Amino acid sequence: MAYSIEITQSTTRKQKPDPNHLIFGKHFTDHMFILDYSVEQGWYNPRIIPYQPITLDPAARVFHYGQTVFEGLKAYRTSEGRTLLFRPDQNFKRLNRSNVRMSIPELDEELAIEGLRKLVEIDQDWIPEVEGTSLYIRPFVIATQASLGVAPSHTYQFLIIMSPVGAYYAEGIHPVKIYVESDYVRTVKGGVGTAKTGGNYAASLKAQEEASGKGYSQVLWLDGVHHKYIEEVGSMNVFFKVNGTVITPELNGSILDGITRKSILELLASWNVPVEERTISIEELYEAHKNGTLEEAFGTGTAAVISPIGQLCWKDEEITLNGGETGELSAKLYDTLTGIQRGVLPDPFGWTMKL
Amino acid sequence: MAYSIEITQSTTRKQKPDPNHLIFGKHFTDHMFILDYSVEQGWYNPRIIPYQPITLDPAARVFHYGQTVFEGLKAYRTSEGRTLLFRPDQNFKRLNRSNVRMSIPELDEELAIEGLRKLVEIDQDWIPEVEGTSLYIRPFVIATQASLGVAPSHTYQFLIIMSPVGAYYAEGIHPVKIYVESDYVRTVKGGVGTAKTGGNYAASLKAQEEASGKGYSQVLWLDGVHHKYIEEVGSMNVFFKVNGTVITPELNGSILDGITRKSILELLASWNVPVEERTISIEELYEAHKNGTLEEAFGTGTAAVISPIGQLCWKDEEITLNGGETGELSAKLYDTLTGIQRGVLPDPFGWTMKL
Ligand SMILES: Cc1ncc(COP(=O)(O)O)c(C=O)c1O
Ligand SMILES: Cc1ncc(COP(=O)(O)O)c(C=O)c1O
Repeated sequence: MAYSIEITQSTTRKQKPDPNHLIFGKHFTDHMFILDYSVEQGWYNPRIIPYQPITLDPAARVFHYGQTVFEGLKAYRTSEGRTLLFRPDQNFKRLNRSNVRMSIPELDEELAIEGLRKLVEIDQDWIPEVEGTSLYIRPFVIATQASLGVAPSHTYQFLIIMSPVGAYYAEGIHPVKIYVESDYVRTVKGGVGTAKTGGNYAASLKAQEEASGKGYSQVLWLDGVHHKYIEEVGSMNVFFKVNGTVITPELNGSILDGITRKSILELLASWNVPVEERTISIEELYEAHKNGTLEEAFGTGTAAVISPIGQLCWKDEEITLNGGETGELSAKLYDTLTGIQRGVLPDPFGWTMKL
Repeated sequence: MAYSIEITQSTTRKQKPDPNHLIFGKHFTDHMFILDYSVEQGWYNPRIIPYQPITLDPAARVFHYGQTVFEGLKAYRTSEGRTLLFRPDQNFKRLNRSNVRMSIPELDEELAIEGLRKLVEIDQDWIPEVEGTSLYIRPFVIATQASLGVAPSHTYQFLIIMSPVGAYYAEGIHPVKIYVESDYVRTVKGGVGTAKTGGNYAASLKAQEEASGKGYSQVLWLDGVHHKYIEEVGSMNVFFKVNGTVITPELNGSILDGITRKSILELLASWNVPVEERTISIEELYEAHKNGTLEEAFGTGTAAVISPIGQLCWKDEEITLNGGETGELSAKLYDTLTGIQRGVLPDPFGWTMKL
């Protein structure tokens, strides 16, 4: 299908940040993609314009009732100068699932991908080439109707902005220290935990701040009902290797269906590594550690790809995993996945989209 | 304390809407109050300026991570032409409690009240005088830092906007039909339910839409752990009169500490009506209805003040309360509270603030 996306080129070009010292999400490219929605017209007026501020009435619903969704994916520059996107179809499918949950009208995934392709093409000079860097892409929808009252908005904007990024953790792929949160919860079944919506992240700030204060880089969330079963780590899904088997929480209605998670499950299956998607309690994990069967743990997400867990602290009891080192499987998964993403390794799964 | 609030008067005045046909939250007055926050300066530059759009970078955190809080209160015009605010100190106290929960820096409540007083004074012609109308006041805070990454923002704006409103429900104080939600949940203990933050409202939209589709005007939320205990109704706290005793859910860590709720508890105590703040299951309520002891039910909140409940529907079983009519106690509470708010009745509690 051919979409007509109006393009207004920026007359100036911003100075690009030093690719060796990129700070996550701080600098944005020269252009952005926008699409409007009204009840009468549906989604309309797809366009690429110079990156610029958004002007909204102070009564716009996004400021009051948090009706938003977003996505996060990356574009990579290969050593031959090609540009690869990693599974963008999955991101726009999930965006639409989030839209449905948040009572936002679904958008045309093909159009969104087409808009993204054009945008990346126009701003391709912004894809950094230094090892470990990429162009982080942030599609998002905000409710713009300028009237108060708790109800779905009648107007929305969908935008895509892009930011050249280094590694998410300044420390690189070194193992991180994780705090197991026993009191605060992020979400619960029946809530909006499966949607990538602002409120879930706002709900995580306080616990994250307190964990940082104690010297931990992220929070591991337990379920909101029993405060017992493992859910996610910060903005990542989480995996454990116990006695040779890889275990990860099942998609239980309160965690995000991560695209890195899904890719890792497919990789592990192709390697014939035994995998279980199931409920895991924090007690079971501590028990496994005591028995010496808890071999590795890692978080997975677009930002960090694989983030090995070196320490876990639950109720004042800190345990060290794999001697605080990156595990063998974590490293292999990281190398394979980033290899495919960067076009260094073959892509037997057809995950990457060439521009 | 004297605050220096810079005032820029609007050079034009908007046409005011017909006070007999006010739509909730649609029209806004000529001015608004703003206060900025930065890590270096704290809250600074309080000012009143013409009502105007907000301009934000598309990376502003409010669009992505939902870090917002808000309040809602009302100004009333008395028959002698005085202006009364209802318990504004309580609203700004609660705003600060919400701020703490959402990792937003607390603001000076005195300054906020002073800004509000000045703003209402400047736009006092906007307070409608028709019976049942008022000026709805919406203070809110948004996270404005233009960078991605899940962490508290380094910059914020606090704003106050105001809108002349009629009754919240077009139907007036007629009883409403309420759908008891068994699957979706709004929040859970350990989450942010006690804070007035956007994400809680975004999380309510889907259930609200589905209930509307079935002919119900609001959702009654059950707790997120057992899906059994009564929490709130839409944007209201909820009360039941069972066998002469008034029962309302206790402040259990997941519901909002409503100012109307608090005022009603004080009124009932002064009338020597027996009151219980405690856990109530939906089964208990249906049981009471079967026994003929469930006498009245009503929601309480700033927007509607008292909203009698005529029907409840739980798992396909609809029950009618008090013959679908407004109960005696509901009516008395409504008349007393609105009487105090409008300066028609004496205010023995010192709830109203004269401007
Ligand atoms: C809450 C949460 N869980 C998990 C993930 C991982 O998802 P993905 O692998 O698609 O990036 C993310 C985000 O990126 C997230 O925000
Ligand atoms: C979720 C919720 N519960 C209860 C209330 C009632 O609070 P108040 O009486 O302070 O208006 C409100 C809001 O107004 C609300 O949003």
